[in-house]
Amino acid sequence: MDRISVDLSGTAGFVGGHELTYMEGAAEGAAHSMIRGMGPGSEFLGWLSLPHDYDKDEFKRILAAAEKVRGESDVFLVIGIGGSYLGARAAIDMLTHTFRNQLYKARKAPQVLFAGHNMSAAYMSDLLEMLEGREVSVNVISKSGTTTEPAVAFRMVKRLMEEKYGKEGAARRIYATTDKASGALRRMADAEGYETFAIPGDVGGRFSVLTAVGLLPMAVAGIDIGSVMAGAADYEKVASGGFPGNDCLKYASMRNILYRKGKSVEVMVSYEPSMAMFTEWWKQLFGESEGKDQKGIFPAGVGFTTDLHSMGQFIQDGARIMFETVINVDRSAKSAMIPDDPEDCDGLNFLSGMDMGLVNRKAAQGTLLAHVEGGVPNVAVNVPEVSAYWFGQLVYFFEMACGVSCRLMGVNPFDQPGVEGYKRNMFALLGKPGYERERAELEARL
Amino acid sequence: MDRISVDLSGTAGFVGGHELTYMEGAAEGAAHSMIRGMGPGSEFLGWLSLPHDYDKDEFKRILAAAEKVRGESDVFLVIGIGGSYLGARAAIDMLTHTFRNQLYKARKAPQVLFAGHNMSAAYMSDLLEMLEGREVSVNVISKSGTTTEPAVAFRMVKRLMEEKYGKEGAARRIYATTDKASGALRRMADAEGYETFAIPGDVGGRFSVLTAVGLLPMAVAGIDIGSVMAGAADYEKVASGGFPGNDCLKYASMRNILYRKGKSVEVMVSYEPSMAMFTEWWKQLFGESEGKDQKGIFPAGVGFTTDLHSMGQFIQDGARIMFETVINVDRSAKSAMIPDDPEDCDGLNFLSGMDMGLVNRKAAQGTLLAHVEGGVPNVAVNVPEVSAYWFGQLVYFFEMACGVSCRLMGVNPFDQPGVEGYKRNMFALLGKPGYERERAELEARL
Repeated sequence: MDRISVDLSGTAGFVGGHELTYMEGAAEGAAHSMIRGMGPGSEFLGWLSLPHDYDKDEFKRILAAAEKVRGESDVFLVIGIGGSYLGARAAIDMLTHTFRNQLYKARKAPQVLFAGHNMSAAYMSDLLEMLEGREVSVNVISKSGTTTEPAVAFRMVKRLMEEKYGKEGAARRIYATTDKASGALRRMADAEGYETFAIPGDVGGRFSVLTAVGLLPMAVAGIDIGSVMAGAADYEKVASGGFPGNDCLKYASMRNILYRKGKSVEVMVSYEPSMAMFTEWWKQLFGESEGKDQKGIFPAGVGFTTDLHSMGQFIQDGARIMFETVINVDRSAKSAMIPDDPEDCDGLNFLSGMDMGLVNRKAAQGTLLAHVEGGVPNVAVNVPEVSAYWFGQLVYFFEMACGVSCRLMGVNPFDQPGVEGYKRNMFALLGKPGYERERAELEARL
Repeated sequence: MDRISVDLSGTAGFVGGHELTYMEGAAEGAAHSMIRGMGPGSEFLGWLSLPHDYDKDEFKRILAAAEKVRGESDVFLVIGIGGSYLGARAAIDMLTHTFRNQLYKARKAPQVLFAGHNMSAAYMSDLLEMLEGREVSVNVISKSGTTTEPAVAFRMVKRLMEEKYGKEGAARRIYATTDKASGALRRMADAEGYETFAIPGDVGGRFSVLTAVGLLPMAVAGIDIGSVMAGAADYEKVASGGFPGNDCLKYASMRNILYRKGKSVEVMVSYEPSMAMFTEWWKQLFGESEGKDQKGIFPAGVGFTTDLHSMGQFIQDGARIMFETVINVDRSAKSAMIPDDPEDCDGLNFLSGMDMGLVNRKAAQGTLLAHVEGGVPNVAVNVPEVSAYWFGQLVYFFEMACGVSCRLMGVNPFDQPGVEGYKRNMFALLGKPGYERERAELEARL
């Protein structure tokens, strides 16, 4: 089986060979304790077995629902935030046509639009205008149903759908992805008669992309979700092993080594613009899992070669606080040949007849060498191509690496105690009943 | 005159009041030396006077060209990278409809699409498919005409345009923004008979948004570029003054104070999704200006409340290496009212009848208090609203702050010596004539 591999040659001048060896026991121990269901956050280890141990009947319902949506919708509106947004968005951006939302009629796939992932009145107002005169289906995704952003968006969209299709007609076009048994959205969905899909109780938001949370929007967008699961399942087999062979342990160990040497920022690099949202998914996965107890590597993202013309100067020559992790894609799925210019005005005829994909790969090689020389350790994550199958491998690779990395960092990978602070303050400032005392305190501080 | 203001109350627990006072002389000195045309990089100070001292005849030609493009195009394709991409993109995303490219027919404004800002064959292939059957006009932007990404894209687009419209027809639809007198693109444009606009020789790429580089794409997108220039001109007047009143000096000083106390990452925050690309423009401005000689604050960006559900945990509770700079918008340009739910399923009826914009502002206040409490100093940049005029003020505010900040950091704000390294390597690996020796060396290292 072909698998994701990690190349650490770009760390050679910064990390001695023995340093990785000295981490092996801890990394394997961290992985094995997770696989045995132990350690901090062990109640949220459901993602480990998802690639093979998922609800096959629900999977068929996802495919059937996607087919129905594709047949009767111009727009599929996905309402969710955080882990209920980034995974699906990452997959769809990475695996479908760059201009799918402009070409949706020709491509016979609905536009996939998102809501409930911000609190902007301008965005919502523009979105509602966009929906006018179009056939719409909706997927509202929330474990509890009370997260403010998606709940507010769903209030507005539910009203619009019921005005447009009537209460029953709307109910046939609204799909709820939520907790199996409890919570506000579960109660509402049951009362209204929405078709529902489950977010397993032992899978946290940022680890949920291989559940209905990610799979239904992907399927509507035309992505082969069977291939996604197959890729994840193949990496699940790899990830149950130790050194060598299980390269997510190498990645997890190396980032901890670099952190302990003072590298406080990890810059995730991709050379495909379609992977920008995959980087955002990765940022949540690592940032929210690891950034706690005043520890953690700050996750940042760049898209090259675009950002070589903006952040490139800093990475080459600024404060030496970062390392780079580069996702190298070996083969471009599409080609674009560079034409010859008989007059060679731009002096680039040495590129004539080459595919842009080749130039992109040479740019990646040249950049790695330049940045290493400039003092930036480079970790390469190698993938043969951008496809549904490899998306699945990448997801499992990074999820497992994240769990191991956090255990090496000494934090619980699966909680997020720090995200409640702003919510409490926001509720108090908005006058939520029961928050009167906090409100007075906060307003005095403003 | 209303102006951008900076509120430093969120730095109070981290920085003593006297510390800012102690920076005043240096900050004012740095600003005045720039205004007098002195100091490192003084050959690139043209941006300082652009808001009042620009080519008025060219400005009229920009408006006329934009009108022509709007009348005869489905797509306006802007080819550029770095400073020849981010400014226009930031303005258009911030100031026009969120879904402008999907609604372009109803809105009677061409789609504005971008090329030459990456080396992805998949992107280019999708773009060329997107252009099929559409009326296209092109703006190629490059000072030299030899930057690889835009030059390669322009080769492909030029061929497409000439096949579609014939050589003369294509020439009437291609606009070149380039050096006044020299360079490959200047020569080609003159030979082909393209209408041209000038990039002044004393304005660097990342400071060029108020030249034709930014103004032509903005005008085509329907932005009132007169208002943009008026906003910039008003802040130019503010920026010629000292403390107090000139708040870009406060911002420049505070970020240097925080850097010297060990804060190595600045997180730029906005609460409007439409400002995501403005943050990217800011990242280039500060990262490329300041990240040199192994110094500089690493610039990162988040969009809240979206990223409170991904990066929020790290900012609240992870490694204490960052401060936040928040762009607060006082009034939302559009409104979206939260409906009541008689059954209050989600428990959010205390928000019924409120505008989302108000909830967004309370989220911002609550987040600031929570993050300050968590150990993250907060700088607030206050703007009354999102509009062309305020975009202009923001551009000048950040450009001036950047120049001053870099001078306080002890670096040349206006060069970028580190961006050549990867290019040399890439050329060598691609077999560019004259790079044979480097090629052998590099391939041995791979």
